[in-house]
Amino acid sequence: MTESLFLGIDGGGTKCRARLRDAQGNLLGEGTGGPSNIRLDPDLVWASILTACREALFQAGLQEDRLKQIHAGMGAAGAGQTSAVERLLSRPHPFASIEIDTDAHTAWLGAFKGGDGAILIVGTGSCGYGGVSGQCHYVGGWGYEISDEGSGAAIGRELLRRTIWAHDGRIALTPLSALVLAEFKNDLEVMVDWVGKARPSDYGRYAPLVLQHAEKRDPLGIDIISDAAAGLGRIATRLLDLGAPALCLFGGLAEPLRPWLPPPVQQAIRPPAADALDGAILLARTALPGGQP
Amino acid sequence: MTESLFLGIDGGGTKCRARLRDAQGNLLGEGTGGPSNIRLDPDLVWASILTACREALFQAGLQEDRLKQIHAGMGAAGAGQTSAVERLLSRPHPFASIEIDTDAHTAWLGAFKGGDGAILIVGTGSCGYGGVSGQCHYVGGWGYEISDEGSGAAIGRELLRRTIWAHDGRIALTPLSALVLAEFKNDLEVMVDWVGKARPSDYGRYAPLVLQHAEKRDPLGIDIISDAAAGLGRIATRLLDLGAPALCLFGGLAEPLRPWLPPPVQQAIRPPAADALDGAILLARTALPGGQP
Repeated sequence: MTESLFLGIDGGGTKCRARLRDAQGNLLGEGTGGPSNIRLDPDLVWASILTACREALFQAGLQEDRLKQIHAGMGAAGAGQTSAVERLLSRPHPFASIEIDTDAHTAWLGAFKGGDGAILIVGTGSCGYGGVSGQCHYVGGWGYEISDEGSGAAIGRELLRRTIWAHDGRIALTPLSALVLAEFKNDLEVMVDWVGKARPSDYGRYAPLVLQHAEKRDPLGIDIISDAAAGLGRIATRLLDLGAPALCLFGGLAEPLRPWLPPPVQQAIRPPAADALDGAILLARTALPGGQP
Repeated sequence: MTESLFLGIDGGGTKCRARLRDAQGNLLGEGTGGPSNIRLDPDLVWASILTACREALFQAGLQEDRLKQIHAGMGAAGAGQTSAVERLLSRPHPFASIEIDTDAHTAWLGAFKGGDGAILIVGTGSCGYGGVSGQCHYVGGWGYEISDEGSGAAIGRELLRRTIWAHDGRIALTPLSALVLAEFKNDLEVMVDWVGKARPSDYGRYAPLVLQHAEKRDPLGIDIISDAAAGLGRIATRLLDLGAPALCLFGGLAEPLRPWLPPPVQQAIRPPAADALDGAILLARTALPGGQP
């Protein structure tokens, strides 16, 4: 038994997912492990990867000794940071090979099977990515502070900012801002204390509330979601202008925001051919000598 | 010698300034001390205050034993935070009395001698404040993250954000964005690393550069400064709408931004009657039994 196996890995901050296929592309098994953001301790990340991988092997009815036949591909948030990838790869591993790229790249690989196209990821952060004629481009995705327009974190932060405007009387109070003010006991000091400890994901947890209110025609909700969608529209438009013939959406906020996107962007949206785990498998396959997309 | 003396203190993050006047308002002396942001260690803050105070006493040719005749007033960034004020006041001090309020309040007291009017402070942060018919109002000023529109920090952060847009091709490159990109070696990873360590004052240091380019008609500079001025205009407009008959400007960025403010706001601008140190002296005087503004 020397036939190659292919493992696709999605390395996230809260969990690691893995999928195992044989050389013919048949699904053999799937598994889940612990946190595997590659900025974390490499030993922890490897432990998470191997937990997910062993579960997939077990599902497939395969033994541990098959690890050395596995060619792995991993999409990971933060893999744009070369030092983090090098640190992870400096540890010994049991695989025949492993390739690591960003989660945007593996999502795009899955969505378009390596062909021309663009993706828009909208979750706590946001990022645009596309490949055209073998050239890949990032648009945005450089983090909450100075990028990530239209992300959940940006929506939540804008909610607090404009709730202050309503509190000051710079804009009218609406049900949405009244709700937020009540949550902070109508005391901006309480809000500022919260902000001092808040992470992007804490802001992002307000995004569904803003969306719900926008859908109920709350003027503040409509303003924030419209601005978020306009920011995402500019990211998508740039990718389409670069020559991407179609756009796939990823991330928990992409579908709810979809009706708010500019119509020319909406018209370019297609369902992805496959998901990021299959994109990661494609990453592993194309890295082999003679591999092709 | 039992005549009261009055000390006005401006408690800043990098230094403490103090001014001593007699009961008739004659200037006796001034002094400077170390950091005195009241969120710092109270012993450090008291040491800074007393250094500044002793210098003022020395200039006045007065002895240390006069400390107990001094009624002090202090305007301090962060004095909206009650716990910080209480911590500072929990330490023994040599003064006959001390009153602490926000730096916005003492700036306003100085500018309008306690009468109706509004102030707009624009430095690393921004804040609007006004008093009308004995009622005081804050507009904005809740910090870089969710407030402080038009501040130096907001201008600098927006510069980096839109430089990414130019890098991605979402907007045209201009001399300003080209300069910023070159500073970060045309590598957004380098920019993101910088952002990870940046404080509001680090962003704020870009504000003069943006202003210079706006004045030279750089389109990106014009857009950022116009947006900043619009945000400040909304703060000022709210204060004027609350009934403030005039507006005084404070902070290093207020004057350079003044020509960009909406004309109705510009028309309301007046020079302040006195500065924040005299406002702090007024704070001390009005706190005395029978004191009046």
